[in-house]
Formats: sequence, structure tokens, C-alpha cells
Amino acid sequence: MSLDTTSYKGVRDFYPEDQFIQSHITNTWRRVVERFGYAEYHASVLESAELYRAKSGEEIVNEQTYTFTDRGEREVTLRPEMTPTVARMVAAKGRELSFPLRWYSIPNLFRYERPQRGRLREHWQLNVDLFGLEGIEAEIEMITIAHHIMQEFGISEDKFEIRINDRILVKEQMEIAGLSEDEQHTYQKLLDKKDKIDDFADQVRTITDKPISTDFAPSSRITSIITNLNQRSITNVVFSPTLMRGFDYYTGIVFEVFDKHPDNNRSLFGGGRYDKLLDIFDHDPVPAIGFGMGDVTIRDVLETYELLPTYRSTTDLYICLLDKKYTSAADELARELRQSNINVAIDYTGRKIGDQIKKADRDRIPFVICIGEDEIASDIYTIKELSTGKEEKLKGKEISSYIK
Amino acid sequence: MSLDTTSYKGVRDFYPEDQFIQSHITNTWRRVVERFGYAEYHASVLESAELYRAKSGEEIVNEQTYTFTDRGEREVTLRPEMTPTVARMVAAKGRELSFPLRWYSIPNLFRYERPQRGRLREHWQLNVDLFGLEGIEAEIEMITIAHHIMQEFGISEDKFEIRINDRILVKEQMEIAGLSEDEQHTYQKLLDKKDKIDDFADQVRTITDKPISTDFAPSSRITSIITNLNQRSITNVVFSPTLMRGFDYYTGIVFEVFDKHPDNNRSLFGGGRYDKLLDIFDHDPVPAIGFGMGDVTIRDVLETYELLPTYRSTTDLYICLLDKKYTSAADELARELRQSNINVAIDYTGRKIGDQIKKADRDRIPFVICIGEDEIASDIYTIKELSTGKEEKLKGKEISSYIK
Repeated sequence: MSLDTTSYKGVRDFYPEDQFIQSHITNTWRRVVERFGYAEYHASVLESAELYRAKSGEEIVNEQTYTFTDRGEREVTLRPEMTPTVARMVAAKGRELSFPLRWYSIPNLFRYERPQRGRLREHWQLNVDLFGLEGIEAEIEMITIAHHIMQEFGISEDKFEIRINDRILVKEQMEIAGLSEDEQHTYQKLLDKKDKIDDFADQVRTITDKPISTDFAPSSRITSIITNLNQRSITNVVFSPTLMRGFDYYTGIVFEVFDKHPDNNRSLFGGGRYDKLLDIFDHDPVPAIGFGMGDVTIRDVLETYELLPTYRSTTDLYICLLDKKYTSAADELARELRQSNINVAIDYTGRKIGDQIKKADRDRIPFVICIGEDEIASDIYTIKELSTGKEEKLKGKEISSYIK
Repeated sequence: MSLDTTSYKGVRDFYPEDQFIQSHITNTWRRVVERFGYAEYHASVLESAELYRAKSGEEIVNEQTYTFTDRGEREVTLRPEMTPTVARMVAAKGRELSFPLRWYSIPNLFRYERPQRGRLREHWQLNVDLFGLEGIEAEIEMITIAHHIMQEFGISEDKFEIRINDRILVKEQMEIAGLSEDEQHTYQKLLDKKDKIDDFADQVRTITDKPISTDFAPSSRITSIITNLNQRSITNVVFSPTLMRGFDYYTGIVFEVFDKHPDNNRSLFGGGRYDKLLDIFDHDPVPAIGFGMGDVTIRDVLETYELLPTYRSTTDLYICLLDKKYTSAADELARELRQSNINVAIDYTGRKIGDQIKKADRDRIPFVICIGEDEIASDIYTIKELSTGKEEKLKGKEISSYIK
């Protein structure tokens, strides 16, 4: 019986060309957040299932997670998001940590849902969190980082907008309308889906007869944040009174980055303040704010705007052999070049020289050297740049600086 | 009810200090294998369970994997090793790929076993594979890479040895003794555990009465490999006729790196040739060889030999504020420095300046600048290197080159 070669449903195989794009995305993330002083942390994809029962939206816990029972009768979940994990880690160390904490991670996350464009079962997500800062400097820093990441990917400011709201304002409106805690929860879920449902007003009427305004003024906190961001030349931030974001644990400011592309108008990613999440661990409250940005979404956006980089091998040089008897000479040259930090592969197949060069070209390795009797005798090599066809004759010792 | 803050049993949380070590390990791996022309690939940790039924040792599949049934009644396994995945990926693309393939990956792997030193339920593992090369150049390259990685970690050649054997030689001995296929399989498993069991000879007698030699001469292939490695100044390779390695799919040369530390004599990692694994996908045979090297083991070794690097933040500079009113001046300085590729964090807490500097020191951020009235008026800043206490007065524009 022959085995299937396809991957498990809804997850991806990353061949070198795919991994190249993936590395471009994660390296860009890393570069920007480290520039802002964030330190990387990480954790296992396996978490106790109860971690997600407390504060994520229920829909996520009950229907959309991969949860199973292990051989020790423990209920285990493949993490659907990173925030509960980072909150757990902060609560575990408590006062040993030196606040404020600027932390980031690039975990893989799992959701059990029907695979569709931009919504796979597994994706990778940049998570950026700042713990221990109550003031608006935290909000400003988060939004600035989000904005810088978009710019670092080459997406100009006119192509997206940053929407911002404060859940405290929404709560005020719900309290004016006299909603109970349960009704407030239902209304918030409804508001989060407002743009996806046709009968929003009708559905609100099933909760309450009183009008709930979605046309209120921004708070002074929001106004200050927007003013400050404008001073930093971040001018595409707009107050958006119907913005909610999905997670139950947000307590204040929420924001999202919205793609203005005419064909593909949508929320790309977002985050918010969650000052009370550490309560679930019986930990003293720690002000916290963060956001998450997924690889699948950003890859789609980069594709749409033709901003994906062209594949290039991490190998600098491919050494081809005119005959297998030159193997040890090639090995010796490679050894010297590797010591000078040049990435070198050697073709040991003994096939025709044209096929060896073709292999380098298919792999997008920029330089090729062919080794035969003359090269070994003279220690002079013809190095060819495959993209231009340009050739140069160099001594062995000159090759590494030429490539650099 | 309060939630537990510990991680799931047998897996690790990586706080920034732990992640620093982790990055040191993975960056070292990456650097060496890319130097030899290997390209990174990746895949999901979820695989169809049947992938592991065919060719891994049965023990692994039946008792030691995390396997569960998803909501679509599919049997899913958290991968216990990467080789079946990479074989699947190669078989899936077949002739579209340009051979030989030099591929590497650093996946996380899961095994369901009692957590103990060096044997956690989740670990990360460098996997290096070379597909499409039958000759001994493949074996030589693999062992050279393994050797280089050890050296790159700072482990000198006298501290370890590389053991090598050929399963074909073991098979010959078993055939001389007239063992059936099943008996051969049992004997191989036994041989693999030889050093861990006291009554090896007795257990062999339960299989056969005839003697099976473990004292045979090396094949010419092994002799050639060792000679070649010696010529490359790799002199710690020894023929080891009882070496088996665990996986059923190995077909020829197997090797392992063995720690000679007197207190902690053990196999660190290894690999081998698996020329027939693609058969399970009904794919034409492709010669293949590879090895895997785990993070937990190497971390232990680095600790034993005191080779772990000291933690250092990825942040270059911490800006402290004499008063919160200097926030926007600090933001502006940080903005300029970040444009010059300096990683900068700002202390927005408004706490005492001494506490701000203490925070930078605890986080092992090398440089600090304090901003007050004078600095803003003069654009001259005192930059302090915390490890030495050395101070320097610099203009704003001079800071980035000073730090670099």
C-alpha cells in the first residue's frame, strides 16, 4: 500500500522557496520589534485546555480548538492564540521579572476550522506585548510598531488605515441603555460582527428596545493617542466607534490595521489593552497591551501589492567539477571559502558540466566556478555570475571578497 | 478559581534568557549548514498518523507518540521525528525538484515519555538531509558537517568521537548465522540496546544458537570514508561494529557523535543512509542520508563544558528620562537611532532615574543615556557602558557609530 504524500488538511509544507518567503516575513517582524527593544520568548504549542476556558471568546474554546486527552488523562490544547500563554508565563515569575516587559514571539497557532483563503488551520503569528505600563505611551508604542512593520514590508501609508476605539466607551453606551452583564456580552459579540451581518439593527432589538449609540465622541485618551501619533508622522489613524476586536479579555483601547485595497477591504491584524488577564492566575493586576499579526494575511497582502521578494538561495557559490577526480581540490577550495564565511555547495554527481551549472541556476545560486586541470595548476578560477553572465578570472584568495 | 501557571508536563517555557540560549543553538546550526549549501524547509507539526506506521521503529509509533483523532475522524500525530516528513515532501514533488537536494530544518518533535534529563516530551532538532547522491561524498559531507557543528560550538575534537558502521555488514553476519527476517529485526533492536542491557549474550541466545560476530572488519566503503575524513583533518572517526542507531529505515552507513566526557559518556546525536524510504510513497528510490541533532542534548553538553554564552539583550541602548516631560525628546532621539539600525528602548515609567538604570542593567542592555533639560538644550548626551562604567559625551548624531 502506498502512502499519501499530501500534508495534513489545512496546514502547509514549506519547500525552500516557501520558506524563503516565510523567513522574509519573520525576519522583517524580528528586525522591527527588536529595534523597539523587544526581547524574544517562546513556549510549547501544547497547553492545558483549561487555560483557554477562562477568557478567550467561548466560540474559540468549544468549537474551534484542537483539544485532546493525553495518556495521563490531561486535557491538552494546541494553542489557538499566544496571549494566554504569555500571561501565564508572566504570572508564573511575577516579581522576579523586571517591569515593564517588552516581549515578542513568533509562535504557530492552531484553529480547527474549514480551510479557506487566509484562514488555515495552522498559521504563524507575531505577538508583541508590553506589560507594566498604564499610560498612553504603551498604546502609542504598539501602534507605532504596527505602522513601522507595514512600512518595513513596503506598504505605504495610503494603502492602509489604523482604526482605534476604547471598549470603555462602548461599555458606557451599554450601561446607558441598561444592559445586564450577559446582554452586554451578547451585544459586544454582535458589534464585532457588525460588518459581516445584514440585520445588525434587528439583532440588537432582540437584546434591548433602547437605542445603543454607535456614534459617540472619542475619549480624551483616544484623542491624545491620535495627536501624538500624528506628531510622529503617523497620520492614518482614525477613531472607529464600532471597532470591538474578538477577544473577551480586552479592557480598554483596541486597534486594528485595515487594508484599504478596493478589491480586498479588510482587517489585517490588531490588538488591544488587557489589564485584567493576569487575574485568572490570582496574580496582582498588571497593565498590558499587545497585538498579533499573522503570516498568512500579510503574505496575501504582499502578493496583492506585488511586494513579495524574488527567491534567492542562501548559498553564494556552486562549485562544478569537470571530472570527479577534481573532488579533493574542490573540497579544499570550498573549505577555504567557508572559513571566509562564504556559503558553498559542491556538485559531486559527475554529470555533464552544463547540467551542473543548470542546477545552480535552478536553485538561484548567484555564482558558479568550474574546476578542471587548468584551475588546479594555476590557482586561477573563472567565476560566473549567473544572473548577468558576467565572468571574472580570480585567484583562489580573491574569490571571497569578490563575492561579498 | 485560580489557574495553574506551570507549563504542560515535559515541555518548556522559554523566557528571554532561555530563548537567548535557544537562539545561540539554532543560529549556530543554521550558520554551519548554510555554509555547506543547505536550504531551509519546514512543515507542520501535525501529520497523518499512518506516516509513522510504515518505517519508524514500532515502539515509537504505538507507545511513544501523541496521536489523536480529529473532528473529521482523521488520525493525527504530533511528529516524533522529521525524516518521514521530508521524505513525504520529496516524494510529493518528485521530478520537479532539482537533485541533489541539500535541505535542512529545525522542527520541534514530540514523544510521549516520562520526562527525565535530556529526554523531554518536546524538543527541537536540527535535521540535515542530502537526497540524490549514492557515493561516499554524501557520507563524508554529513560527517564533516556534524564535526563542524561541534567545533562551531567550541567543543574540541578530543572531547568527542564519531562512530561509524555499515548495516550491510551487520546484515551479512546475521545471514551467515541463518536468521530469518523477523529474527534479524529482533537482533538489530537488541544490538541497538547492547550498551544498556547486562545480558546481551543471553538475549541473543533466545534468537539463535549460532554465534553472530560483532568483531568483523570494516568494509572498503567505511575505510574510504575514514581515510577521506582524516585527509580533511577530521581524525576522531572510529569504526564501531556494534553501532546500529534506532530507526528501521536505515539501509547502509550509520554514524553517531559520542561524548567522551568521563562522567557523561553517551551518544549525542547521529544519522545514517536511508536509500529506500521513498518506497513507502511508491516513488522511485532516491539515495538519501541525513542526521538529526537535538537542542536539549547539545545544551547539556555546552553546560558541562561551560560553553554556554552569557545573556546579552538584543537591545543596544536604554533611554532614561529625568522627567516624563522629556518623553517626546526621547522619542525623537530613539527614532533617529532606530533609523541607523540601533535597537532602542525608552523608560516611560516616570520612576526614579536610578531605578530606570537598574532596569537596563538587569536586562543586560549594554548602553544607557539619561535625558534632561541640558541634553535637550545642547544635543550632547552622556552615554554609559554599564559593564565597564565608562562614560562618553557625544552629539546625537555620533551615538549610533559609537555603539556600533
